[in-house]
Amino acid sequence: MENQIFELQYAMDTFYFLVCGALVMWMAAGFAMLEAGLVRSKNTTEILTKNVALFAISCIMYLVVGYDIMYGGGIFLSGIESVDVDQVLADSKEAGFDGDSVYSGASDFFFQVVFVATAMSIVSGAVAERMKLWAFLAFAVVMTGVIYPMEGAWTWNGDDVFGMYNLGDLGFSDFAGSGIVHMAGAAAALAGVLLLGARKGKYGANGSVNAIPGANLPLATLGTFILWMGWFGFNGGSVLKLGDVNSAHSVAMVFLNTNAAAAGGAIAALLTARILFGKADLTMLLNGALAGLVAITAEPSTPTALQATLFGAIGGTLVVFSIITLDKLKIDDPVGAISVHGTCGLLGLMLVPFTNSGVTFSGQLIGALTIFVWVFAFSLIVWSVLKAVMGIRVSEEEEYEGVDIAECGMEAYPEFTKG
Amino acid sequence: MENQIFELQYAMDTFYFLVCGALVMWMAAGFAMLEAGLVRSKNTTEILTKNVALFAISCIMYLVVGYDIMYGGGIFLSGIESVDVDQVLADSKEAGFDGDSVYSGASDFFFQVVFVATAMSIVSGAVAERMKLWAFLAFAVVMTGVIYPMEGAWTWNGDDVFGMYNLGDLGFSDFAGSGIVHMAGAAAALAGVLLLGARKGKYGANGSVNAIPGANLPLATLGTFILWMGWFGFNGGSVLKLGDVNSAHSVAMVFLNTNAAAAGGAIAALLTARILFGKADLTMLLNGALAGLVAITAEPSTPTALQATLFGAIGGTLVVFSIITLDKLKIDDPVGAISVHGTCGLLGLMLVPFTNSGVTFSGQLIGALTIFVWVFAFSLIVWSVLKAVMGIRVSEEEEYEGVDIAECGMEAYPEFTKG
Amino acid sequence: MENQIFELQYAMDTFYFLVCGALVMWMAAGFAMLEAGLVRSKNTTEILTKNVALFAISCIMYLVVGYDIMYGGGIFLSGIESVDVDQVLADSKEAGFDGDSVYSGASDFFFQVVFVATAMSIVSGAVAERMKLWAFLAFAVVMTGVIYPMEGAWTWNGDDVFGMYNLGDLGFSDFAGSGIVHMAGAAAALAGVLLLGARKGKYGANGSVNAIPGANLPLATLGTFILWMGWFGFNGGSVLKLGDVNSAHSVAMVFLNTNAAAAGGAIAALLTARILFGKADLTMLLNGALAGLVAITAEPSTPTALQATLFGAIGGTLVVFSIITLDKLKIDDPVGAISVHGTCGLLGLMLVPFTNSGVTFSGQLIGALTIFVWVFAFSLIVWSVLKAVMGIRVSEEEEYEGVDIAECGMEAYPEFTKG
Repeated sequence: MENQIFELQYAMDTFYFLVCGALVMWMAAGFAMLEAGLVRSKNTTEILTKNVALFAISCIMYLVVGYDIMYGGGIFLSGIESVDVDQVLADSKEAGFDGDSVYSGASDFFFQVVFVATAMSIVSGAVAERMKLWAFLAFAVVMTGVIYPMEGAWTWNGDDVFGMYNLGDLGFSDFAGSGIVHMAGAAAALAGVLLLGARKGKYGANGSVNAIPGANLPLATLGTFILWMGWFGFNGGSVLKLGDVNSAHSVAMVFLNTNAAAAGGAIAALLTARILFGKADLTMLLNGALAGLVAITAEPSTPTALQATLFGAIGGTLVVFSIITLDKLKIDDPVGAISVHGTCGLLGLMLVPFTNSGVTFSGQLIGALTIFVWVFAFSLIVWSVLKAVMGIRVSEEEEYEGVDIAECGMEAYPEFTKG
Repeated sequence: MENQIFELQYAMDTFYFLVCGALVMWMAAGFAMLEAGLVRSKNTTEILTKNVALFAISCIMYLVVGYDIMYGGGIFLSGIESVDVDQVLADSKEAGFDGDSVYSGASDFFFQVVFVATAMSIVSGAVAERMKLWAFLAFAVVMTGVIYPMEGAWTWNGDDVFGMYNLGDLGFSDFAGSGIVHMAGAAAALAGVLLLGARKGKYGANGSVNAIPGANLPLATLGTFILWMGWFGFNGGSVLKLGDVNSAHSVAMVFLNTNAAAAGGAIAALLTARILFGKADLTMLLNGALAGLVAITAEPSTPTALQATLFGAIGGTLVVFSIITLDKLKIDDPVGAISVHGTCGLLGLMLVPFTNSGVTFSGQLIGALTIFVWVFAFSLIVWSVLKAVMGIRVSEEEEYEGVDIAECGMEAYPEFTKG
Repeated sequence: MENQIFELQYAMDTFYFLVCGALVMWMAAGFAMLEAGLVRSKNTTEILTKNVALFAISCIMYLVVGYDIMYGGGIFLSGIESVDVDQVLADSKEAGFDGDSVYSGASDFFFQVVFVATAMSIVSGAVAERMKLWAFLAFAVVMTGVIYPMEGAWTWNGDDVFGMYNLGDLGFSDFAGSGIVHMAGAAAALAGVLLLGARKGKYGANGSVNAIPGANLPLATLGTFILWMGWFGFNGGSVLKLGDVNSAHSVAMVFLNTNAAAAGGAIAALLTARILFGKADLTMLLNGALAGLVAITAEPSTPTALQATLFGAIGGTLVVFSIITLDKLKIDDPVGAISVHGTCGLLGLMLVPFTNSGVTFSGQLIGALTIFVWVFAFSLIVWSVLKAVMGIRVSEEEEYEGVDIAECGMEAYPEFTKG
């Protein structure tokens, strides 16, 4: 009967991972819809292609090399069927069923792999409307195979950073990845955007910033709702265990706080934009919800629901100013990804010490710097190599005509667009 | 070992709530897509803004005051982390693990809060294309903070109605909220629509009714599928417990019957519209599926699957006639929300006694009246105050140009619309 | 306490079925969006109507006759409430809680019914843009009520094929339905397409093939992501049990391999199309992901993740050539459904023996032939009868104007389309 209880717990924790993983996979659709809605129609087919392909590349690269770098073992290369289930049971029995997390390694991989894709999805939006498709996919191979797994290992696997220090030992904590996933994605995107330059016509000679409206706001809204829903899996699954009272309560708190932060971020951005622009700006509202989600991701389990709402609201306010500031700096990010995931990812890290006493501000700062420098520098090198070898920007004519025809040979809405 | 079994049950019931809650949250996306698909393109950005913002407002208001009014305790204001997990275990042990539902309070809040948003989502569709955005959001604050929580308390918390009677004691039962959520939303919507008046051009001087087609039917269809899926969580989670044979079987029956009722409603509406209009009317088909879902929501656990299909079919037939009738009465509801959620919500309540012998027709009628009068009267007052203070209807010129530019400053499809 | 453990296991397995079933139901939305995105705007309302209606018809027909044919018992006709829960417990106790799968019959029905709809959804895409709506729905009644349940019974219920042989006894295995669901749907579609003929203008007199681009590629991409996600339920639920270590591990492997195969298929199709056409073809990328999913469906539990990726890649390559070949044969399939589900369904069956030693190539071949001949022949008869009785193809003028106005009386995008 002891065995049966253990088996139930194993099954429950495995199922919990799989459900959360499926929700995070769903975020890939969210990014695809969000970005497809916020670009112009002539660049829509290409951004869709990028999003589907980057997800597939992430799955393959993380399987073949990434997971090994991040967690070791080589188990996925040599075949998962070799897991000895009886051994798992015996080991756990010997340890007295002490409540440690025990679940199928396959479910862990499934949950981890969709995180890689999330980090990579952040990049595609920021470089939209002017980057070459195949250069982007080449970058995706390196990002998901090496750059992300390395920095992920430093925290979530406790590895040393170049043999110098270990982020966890410095008092750094990043529950579900405000820094490790979101800021990392934004750092890679920023490196690409700096090398790539702004879209033609975005910034006027006299310092003016021209709005380039997205072609399909219902799609962008749908994408935001998908991300909001998928985030329950992203954060909720990061408790890593469900099958006892404390863990289950933590998972429930994480769901609740994740939702509360998104709500706070949405309303704060709506009001901030109303004050600044005089209108109810839908794209800011959407980015505000996402900003709240990013901000709570570093620690969704310790705040009260009211604190989570407040943290989200800080994120939702900050993201509006970040978007305005980046435009002043002529850093052209068509969907606001660097602000949402980068600025608010950093914010999320710095908010952790307020509710989690085991974490220090200095630790968070060093951790954030380590992740940013690593991802930004490595990405800059990779983008530069790609620029030299194959070029990363489409020709001016292709940009004018739209990358859809140039790269994909088909329009996203062949019957709809004017003239 | 007794403890371990209890912990597993606690974890399972908590997880079940969270999964169902995530599905209900997903319904917010469903309402947004359904309504965005059924309005004209010039009013699309605004309806999207309303839907995202009302969801966020619901989450904040229900956290700060609503849940307290409905279930008491103040626990969410003072911080959820104070739940004493050990005490929960000890209490339950003392009670002999008698199978009572025990789960994380955070998961219960998460599940309840998404219901509030559902009620509010119903309103946005009915008042679409002519209501001021900020007046709508102000109403959302009152609806989700006070109006809904009060009437919810009368049934689901067993409170007295103004110290006079308790709905449950009268033989009233509303399993997942045909009345408490759906009819309540429709009652609030009806009050708003009556004060607001019809859209310009909807009703001709000579009594003619002009069809105003929705701009994007794939979106409306997607919204319906999302709602259909989310409803499994809405009704399935309302069993409130999963972790024993009887509860699990109930949850399964609820999933099955919810699906069957939607199917019955869809086909009945398709055939009814075919007979009346001579065509396969997609919008009626969609509303038929939703009508079936609303009709089964008051009692999805006791009917057989065939009965559920039949109940859904009654709803699907009724909704077509209700939509026609409202148009004859010049009550302009662009998406049919009052018919789907109001007429069929009442139908759902009145169908309960046929399969649940503990429930009486008189009890259902008194309950329905109580909910309707409370929500309608309170809403009418709030809408009237808003009308006097800030106005609830956009100017004629703004309505003609579309509320998107006036309220949000951006078009939903800037590249697509003709001329 | 023994009882409590049993009850938890029952609840867990039931919940697992329901979650997986909800994911498969979600695939109905995926097919609807995929097909709506790949047809022209003038045929979009009709394809949406077909997809919603066929799902509803599937649910009703399978409830009333299909499930009885496939699994017997008549339980769903006589009312599910008659399940004796105490008896279930007593029976299982007598059997010593031997780990056999025990769950609510209602959850089993819910999971099975959404498979029927999947098979039928495959048909709607292939016959799009020229078939009469009511003829299609009439076919759906026969397909979901009789054709599918019969062939399903031969494998999944172990029935004899016309009293001659039993597919399982021949060494045939089809884990989640590469053949039973997907190839079966494609066989029914092929029969319809052959009788129906190609769309006007698809094939030129001189043997040329004219591309007819889909109107809304973001929708098609969304549909693919939905199907990808829903497939976790489709394959994952087909383990039929979760609540012990071995089953949970199997479910996890199935999720992992399903995802890996989709990724492999996507990348392989992207590269194949790049080589053949010189562009990053989004529709081929999408069909490649789906082809990978279909190919792994016959056996997602025994391959390693690398093998699954490879199997998916074979599917993704094959589907491109299959689509080209069908066009050469002037078999007009607007969405590529016959190639994705038929060609790759067969591929999936033939890949099983490579990783599952209990299965033979000859058994797979005989099984595939049996299913194909049964479904194709029966479908051909039904389509022929429909053609004679009511006609299956719209008039030339209706096809030119679009079936939306003719069949549904409304446009899908009334404000968007050019001129």
